[in-house]
Amino acid sequence: MNDSIRNVAITGGTHGNELTGVHLVKHWLSQPEEVKRGSFSTELHLTNPQAIKDVRRYIDQDLNRQFDIQDLRNPELKGYEQQRAKLLDALLGPKENPRIDFIIDLHTTTANMGMSLVFNSGDPLVVGMAFYIKQKMPHATLFYEPSNRLEHNFLTSMGRLSGLLIEVGPIAQGLLNYEVYSDTHIAVMHALDYLQQRSEGLPLNLPTQMAGYQFTKKVSLPENTEGEITAMIHPDLQGKDYHAIKPGDPLFITLAGETIAYEGESTVYGAFINEAAYYDQKIGLSFMKKININLESSTNTNCG
Amino acid sequence: MNDSIRNVAITGGTHGNELTGVHLVKHWLSQPEEVKRGSFSTELHLTNPQAIKDVRRYIDQDLNRQFDIQDLRNPELKGYEQQRAKLLDALLGPKENPRIDFIIDLHTTTANMGMSLVFNSGDPLVVGMAFYIKQKMPHATLFYEPSNRLEHNFLTSMGRLSGLLIEVGPIAQGLLNYEVYSDTHIAVMHALDYLQQRSEGLPLNLPTQMAGYQFTKKVSLPENTEGEITAMIHPDLQGKDYHAIKPGDPLFITLAGETIAYEGESTVYGAFINEAAYYDQKIGLSFMKKININLESSTNTNCG
Repeated sequence: MNDSIRNVAITGGTHGNELTGVHLVKHWLSQPEEVKRGSFSTELHLTNPQAIKDVRRYIDQDLNRQFDIQDLRNPELKGYEQQRAKLLDALLGPKENPRIDFIIDLHTTTANMGMSLVFNSGDPLVVGMAFYIKQKMPHATLFYEPSNRLEHNFLTSMGRLSGLLIEVGPIAQGLLNYEVYSDTHIAVMHALDYLQQRSEGLPLNLPTQMAGYQFTKKVSLPENTEGEITAMIHPDLQGKDYHAIKPGDPLFITLAGETIAYEGESTVYGAFINEAAYYDQKIGLSFMKKININLESSTNTNCG
Repeated sequence: MNDSIRNVAITGGTHGNELTGVHLVKHWLSQPEEVKRGSFSTELHLTNPQAIKDVRRYIDQDLNRQFDIQDLRNPELKGYEQQRAKLLDALLGPKENPRIDFIIDLHTTTANMGMSLVFNSGDPLVVGMAFYIKQKMPHATLFYEPSNRLEHNFLTSMGRLSGLLIEVGPIAQGLLNYEVYSDTHIAVMHALDYLQQRSEGLPLNLPTQMAGYQFTKKVSLPENTEGEITAMIHPDLQGKDYHAIKPGDPLFITLAGETIAYEGESTVYGAFINEAAYYDQKIGLSFMKKININLESSTNTNCG
């Protein structure tokens, strides 16, 4: 694929109550030289204005689940975010052949995921950006969830070469925290520098392989027959994103204080542990597997 | 004042996105023996059902600001929470001569306030409850904001002898955390035990004086001429609730990274530092003064 980059979009407020991205984009709108690089143009977009105004994740639907090509082309889908997705398809796309080459979408989480670099493409340009940022910010974690770009429903899938979702936590919804704001700011600067250096043909000195995590499944919170949750994340698991969960380890604790253990047969790793935004679907955490990610090939290897 | 206690109400979900109180009340509705004591009856109420359903602080107005007697008696106030307040006045009140003697209202905060015991009455029964809980849970903080019960706008002011607001953090909105849930659970048990022991005439062995904090003022976040915030809590202040803020100490940091210092002339103490719910009013924190609180007299003394 032609990997030359001409148009980059930085997007914030895809979830209207994740204020870090909202205020970083506002900051850069007033200081555009910070995101300017010589070899490409950088656009700034606040993608979900009504949700930002209402300080809510979304009005009708989660905007960051609306970009599957079939949904974009479905005229029956008329909710606020479904319409926003069509508008963003016109602005940044069209998805089949997008005007925008690469999208950097800014998010936060209530989970203790630190600086997580979420990418859905095995393209060396995309993987290389994650490697580059992790080299500069060793506390970052690589979060890989491979997907077909056209079928994927994230905003980042609107980029011709896909994009990078920067997910930082823990932070409450509707809040700014300078550490989170500053860390996200620095990561975006590295992302832009990487694209610039790459387009200038400068040596990037990236490793051929780095360790990371691959999404495997979402895990539901226990609920009763009325559909109300009956347990919460166990205190031993709270805040332990990317730590090993072994068979028999505690997962949940009921409202009455009884522990519910992990009954799987193999070690997994948790992410999005106690993410407030997932309570509406009663999801308690994601299970991940630890992998080695290769820069030049999509043949990643499990590493237990 | 007649301080015999016959009817106690435990209330949760006054702010619909503070899930700890919501789920504790649901838990006790299924296990009512936990809140039963011999000398009084205990009622359980989820006070803002629509906001709980929508996982929002409020629908139209902050319910916990609607209980001033003038507002309760004003038929022009017809918003959802204004109507809920009138309904709660009928259920628990009337405010001038309430059926409920004491209200324990459960809240959480995104600020690092630990277990804060908020009370608005200098009545020895109320102060004694806070002292009793702090004796059992030394990490608790006494947060005193004296007010006239009839004019006060908190739900706790609906109790004949006022009440206790239990405020625990930090925790994100829309989230459960077992440490917060469990700590709140324990504090409520102590509150009920205190009322029971008091009514039985058992010796309580309370100190005559304990240290605490008294609310003095709310401090706004810096904003621009368009009314948008231009700064956030400084990282040196983040999480430092109830620590001293001296003249010249950093308060805020702008989106561009410039520090804004506290310009007052005397030492103050912060609380509700970076509470997400106060962003709509662009309030960054509260200033408190450190005081000694007396059990039997309202003549509390400043202690710098």
